[in-house]
Amino acid sequence: MSSSVGTPWKQLLLCSIQANSRLNHSSYLQLATVSANDRPSNRTVVFRGFMDDTDKILIHSDIRTRKIDDLKHSPFAEICWYFSDTWEQFRISGRVEVIDGTNTDPSKLEQRASSWFASSLKSRLQYTSPAPGIPLSSQQPLLDDRAGPAPAFCLLVFDPHEVDYLNLKSSKRVMFSSGSNIWTSEEVSP
Amino acid sequence: MSSSVGTPWKQLLLCSIQANSRLNHSSYLQLATVSANDRPSNRTVVFRGFMDDTDKILIHSDIRTRKIDDLKHSPFAEICWYFSDTWEQFRISGRVEVIDGTNTDPSKLEQRASSWFASSLKSRLQYTSPAPGIPLSSQQPLLDDRAGPAPAFCLLVFDPHEVDYLNLKSSKRVMFSSGSNIWTSEEVSP
Repeated sequence: MSSSVGTPWKQLLLCSIQANSRLNHSSYLQLATVSANDRPSNRTVVFRGFMDDTDKILIHSDIRTRKIDDLKHSPFAEICWYFSDTWEQFRISGRVEVIDGTNTDPSKLEQRASSWFASSLKSRLQYTSPAPGIPLSSQQPLLDDRAGPAPAFCLLVFDPHEVDYLNLKSSKRVMFSSGSNIWTSEEVSP
Repeated sequence: MSSSVGTPWKQLLLCSIQANSRLNHSSYLQLATVSANDRPSNRTVVFRGFMDDTDKILIHSDIRTRKIDDLKHSPFAEICWYFSDTWEQFRISGRVEVIDGTNTDPSKLEQRASSWFASSLKSRLQYTSPAPGIPLSSQQPLLDDRAGPAPAFCLLVFDPHEVDYLNLKSSKRVMFSSGSNIWTSEEVSP
């Protein structure tokens, strides 16, 4: 189901990423989840690529953030990714798997470690800092660059099941839906 | 409760809007809601200013879009607004009131009409187009620029109750909460 070559929206997304690559923020997207109190949460996260040759989207997170609580409550999420140079929006809804250090699948732990080493030292450092959202302390984190993933580091694997593409320049809107191992698409009014 | 002068996050937000104003997309924000199936929805909308001198945020929408169904199901929403020039993020959670043409409060209908006339002809035209998300037809909309709000036009009034501010340049994060007619703030770890 997740083979990438035959996924039409993935090709479109890769083109948008390429066309907007001069902008640092083009890899920033907004991830919405539902909290345990049934209210929506929304935050900016960084796109970390696709998992191998699938259409699953990789995101790094800190297990101490509220989004992990949200995802334990409900694994469903919606990405809103706006490309400001090309005026394109991708709304991608799907299901998120959280891979932390307690995962029992060796291949998933390997994927997590590989994501850890692929990120910058500065990025890694934040996972050894005091938990996000707590009152400030003067605690200073230290990090050995050969050390494996910090306990707080987790990998989010976002598995898309619907993509709503909108091009504001051409007023073109296409809905992509997955079902029975196949993606279908339909052009709709913007 | 919504008096603007004493609202510290509003001042911060106005500064960010000003500092990023060279970018057209700086008025674009992502609005997350919860759908009737309890899954999150997320889309880009345009900031249309504050309501009078309050801290309520105005957004225009089409009553035929899914977000209106979402808001009927649950009025709670969360804005994620990232400013790409200054590396600042505002996450604003609150409650949304939908003002459409069936509203029985004359002052709210007046606010809706005033928002309608404040928007461009091109913006207005989309509310007379075929409903968003339906298969394409060749129907062509027409619009008299003196005509009042199209039936599909509605005004969303977003009433914030919590603001999570993050500055990625300074690594400063401040949480603002409202309660008993007063806003309080606390600096927390990023």
